[in-house]
Amino acid sequence: MISVIIIGAGNVATHLFKAFHKSEQISVKQWYNRHLNPINPYKNDVEITDDLSQLKEADVYVIAVSDDAIKELSSKLPFENRLVVHTSGGVSVYDINQKNRRGVFYPLQTFSKDAFIDFANVPICIEAIKSDDYHVLKSLAKSIGSSTKRVNSDQRRVLHLAAVFVNNFTNQLYRVAHEITESEGADFDILKPLILETANKVQELSPYMAQTGPAKRNDKKTIKKHLKILDNNPHHKAIYELLTESIQKTHGRKKL
Amino acid sequence: MISVIIIGAGNVATHLFKAFHKSEQISVKQWYNRHLNPINPYKNDVEITDDLSQLKEADVYVIAVSDDAIKELSSKLPFENRLVVHTSGGVSVYDINQKNRRGVFYPLQTFSKDAFIDFANVPICIEAIKSDDYHVLKSLAKSIGSSTKRVNSDQRRVLHLAAVFVNNFTNQLYRVAHEITESEGADFDILKPLILETANKVQELSPYMAQTGPAKRNDKKTIKKHLKILDNNPHHKAIYELLTESIQKTHGRKKL
Repeated sequence: MISVIIIGAGNVATHLFKAFHKSEQISVKQWYNRHLNPINPYKNDVEITDDLSQLKEADVYVIAVSDDAIKELSSKLPFENRLVVHTSGGVSVYDINQKNRRGVFYPLQTFSKDAFIDFANVPICIEAIKSDDYHVLKSLAKSIGSSTKRVNSDQRRVLHLAAVFVNNFTNQLYRVAHEITESEGADFDILKPLILETANKVQELSPYMAQTGPAKRNDKKTIKKHLKILDNNPHHKAIYELLTESIQKTHGRKKL
Repeated sequence: MISVIIIGAGNVATHLFKAFHKSEQISVKQWYNRHLNPINPYKNDVEITDDLSQLKEADVYVIAVSDDAIKELSSKLPFENRLVVHTSGGVSVYDINQKNRRGVFYPLQTFSKDAFIDFANVPICIEAIKSDDYHVLKSLAKSIGSSTKRVNSDQRRVLHLAAVFVNNFTNQLYRVAHEITESEGADFDILKPLILETANKVQELSPYMAQTGPAKRNDKKTIKKHLKILDNNPHHKAIYELLTESIQKTHGRKKL
């Protein structure tokens, strides 16, 4: 049994609480937040507190707060030499105050407040300075069904950056497609199977091998047609040109 | 029973042949290609020919050849007043020679040569000039399990363009993410569940509602960190900047 105390009340903290709470191998001893309001609905499931001095002893303290708050909060913890981890992709493990044993427990997934999260689909990137701590964090992840990967701070930083490309930027391409289809009264919904298949394809093939389309085959006529449609939207046109160039760079074609 | 003759031997032609051949409501009467070699493996399943003058009578002639070849090929067909359709997203229905009844049967999906295609996941965009022809094409699509959408040439043109954004350009973002993770020896595979979830999310939510991340919440500190990592790759950096700007434009944030 691993005992855990959660610190913070955002999306990640809340989803982790629910997953930890459900696991038979984990006991959530307390949930701290500086305001009780957001965690109040859970007071029948777990002891809640807004007072750091009341924190009990536990195997792992999981700080799931905004990046900027990790450093200061960790320095305020009223104990030493315990295992304290944060859940951030972009923050160094050394931002955690050195009076405690430090680690990172970074779930690489997109979290919405209301959507149910199956942690079997959430790989956890683990970093720990001590080997024993690494194994505790690995067990913690396993207990909620997650796969794990040992990742150092440099790797985690680039994974966090890469996640922005495959999640936020990809989603913005969906948004642009939505705007383009709506401009002619076409139905964005028809694109949804293609969106899924594009994501499915790279589960097996590398993105390099999965690539198709006018940019890759240097189909200048189609590219020209597309740029003409985009003439009335310089912003969409700039995205089209840059990503076409990027594909041609990757696949050894000439520039536009 | 709808009788069909397929013209061409590329990915789309081959996948359509397999689906038509499997359907009990469709009879593939012939398969034409200017070279017999690529369709030779199917000669026990269907009559094959490389001679346009040998084409038989059928309810629908499906021209699935490269965009540039549609016009000329359709003018060479040795008959009149029959239903002839092409399968292209970017070509006008009027590129088909007017001696025949014209239509479009555009499957909006990404096709790989070897991957199995379930046409239940392939919406077919249908255009026809005559109402009777529209209904034949709709039945044809239904017979292979596809949903259909009536789409005019302008709408089809923007759908084809939007498909480049959600398929080719999205795949290129995966590729950039691959390059970024490899640069630090991190494992691209850890991103795969996030890639899937990003595509899944917009099956229910609009891309606008699904957006998260540093650009949307105007988290300048994280954006600055990311741009610093990208300093050694101006090309990736340009994509980061342009798509961050795009998200901020969509969500009413200030420019970088």
